Amino acid sequence: MSRTVYVNGDYLPEEEAKVSIFDRGFLMADGVYEVTSVLGGKLIDFAGHARRLARSLNELDMKAPLTEDELLEIHRELVARNELVDGMIYLQVTRGAADRDFAFPVDAEPTVVLFTQSKPGLADNPVAKTGIKVISIPDIRWGRRDIKTVQLLYPSMGKMMAKKAGADDAWLVEDGKVTEGTSNNAYIVKGGKIITRQLGNEILHGITRAAVLRCAREAQMEVEERAFTIEEAQAADEAFITSASAFVMPVVEIDGATLGDGKPGRVAARLREIYLDEMRKAAV
Amino acid sequence: MSRTVYVNGDYLPEEEAKVSIFDRGFLMADGVYEVTSVLGGKLIDFAGHARRLARSLNELDMKAPLTEDELLEIHRELVARNELVDGMIYLQVTRGAADRDFAFPVDAEPTVVLFTQSKPGLADNPVAKTGIKVISIPDIRWGRRDIKTVQLLYPSMGKMMAKKAGADDAWLVEDGKVTEGTSNNAYIVKGGKIITRQLGNEILHGITRAAVLRCAREAQMEVEERAFTIEEAQAADEAFITSASAFVMPVVEIDGATLGDGKPGRVAARLREIYLDEMRKAAV
Repeated sequence: MSRTVYVNGDYLPEEEAKVSIFDRGFLMADGVYEVTSVLGGKLIDFAGHARRLARSLNELDMKAPLTEDELLEIHRELVARNELVDGMIYLQVTRGAADRDFAFPVDAEPTVVLFTQSKPGLADNPVAKTGIKVISIPDIRWGRRDIKTVQLLYPSMGKMMAKKAGADDAWLVEDGKVTEGTSNNAYIVKGGKIITRQLGNEILHGITRAAVLRCAREAQMEVEERAFTIEEAQAADEAFITSASAFVMPVVEIDGATLGDGKPGRVAARLREIYLDEMRKAAV
Repeated sequence: MSRTVYVNGDYLPEEEAKVSIFDRGFLMADGVYEVTSVLGGKLIDFAGHARRLARSLNELDMKAPLTEDELLEIHRELVARNELVDGMIYLQVTRGAADRDFAFPVDAEPTVVLFTQSKPGLADNPVAKTGIKVISIPDIRWGRRDIKTVQLLYPSMGKMMAKKAGADDAWLVEDGKVTEGTSNNAYIVKGGKIITRQLGNEILHGITRAAVLRCAREAQMEVEERAFTIEEAQAADEAFITSASAFVMPVVEIDGATLGDGKPGRVAARLREIYLDEMRKAAV
């Protein structure tokens, strides 16, 4: 069955969903995106994603094409039309179509695209019980990773490097310290303390990161926001990643070194449970 | 009048030229491009651009969708159908359309898009007689600038920063040295010697750069390939940029400092003449 997707005001079968070849998203990666998870037909932390989208657009001097309420309505309409139970909704906004020029066009209208991805049982991913393996690679991405742009070629290459090395994902390293995963934030746990890199231009300001840290603090867990090395991570008690679609996912191996007994740690497991519980309650 | 453009085997009016919203060029900047100039209806250094395209595709493990001969035929067909005299032909190849995933798709067919841009009198651009002003900005692009990807958001932002500062373009600075311009290679001239950054992952391997340096050496001009600072550039006798569409373009001001007497230098003027002359002769 073909998905129904959203393109600039229209709900279309995915085969008919197209954008101009002059769209700056296609020609110049001049666009931003968000991915919101859906569990039981409801949106997880929609407000957080809407807020970050507004920030990304603002950082790039792009117009906000729709209000938060309008975006919510489209998200819900796509859930309904695709009978989506568990999965994700992808949203992309570009500066629009204009004859190719490096300078921003004066009168282009933003392009807005949304589509669903069905992932039955997303929250019961069995990998959460066994954990993932990561390798480290140099972080050579551009310097404004806090803006969620579609410049995803290197993260994509990183995923392929991980695959080739028999791992599941890659952690990016800059100036000797881990920045984040290819599409997620990275954490280690040592002596009960959760350590994750502080916010800055170097990493994405994860919506899931913010919620998970809030959950951790509410549960009286100690949190330290600072950068760490791969060596420190390999010597940690446990490690995990967070993202909108992986939630909290344990890491059991880093560059071939097994963490602890090679099984997902208790802190990650507990955080995953608390996070999913809270998010389901607040889902809209 | 609407242009005729090329999309995956079809010649279409530009209004109908579209790609899937699932194209990885649109979703992940997973694509590369080339721009070839056209003078008097003929292609400038087509072989050079075809060679670099092949290199970019290879670096990203992407299939070459068409042979050099097939690409040449499409370029010529677009020149004919659009009655293009002077201007550019833009060519983009992406990894193709597939449901969104960071991992490269196994069976996607590359997307190939070409379109023309008419620029009457391109080689007689009056700006070549007055020169351009540049500002310097930090180079925060990704680390593989030798691959000509569509990740052009920062160069685009750089062009806007230049505009805002009353300049024409920006030179990018990394670790205290100029890498290149937003969409061109950068040069200074001191004591008759032409100085430009050596090739590496830090800069685009300009097709025009290669040809211009060849012309310079053939004309017995001294060339030194090494990085230089903004301060050194400001103290130079002259400066210029090269690109497929600007050819050789003099720079007369850098970060507010006027070079020499503020007029285009003799080396740049001579190189522009020799380059255009040689290229017109070899055009296909």
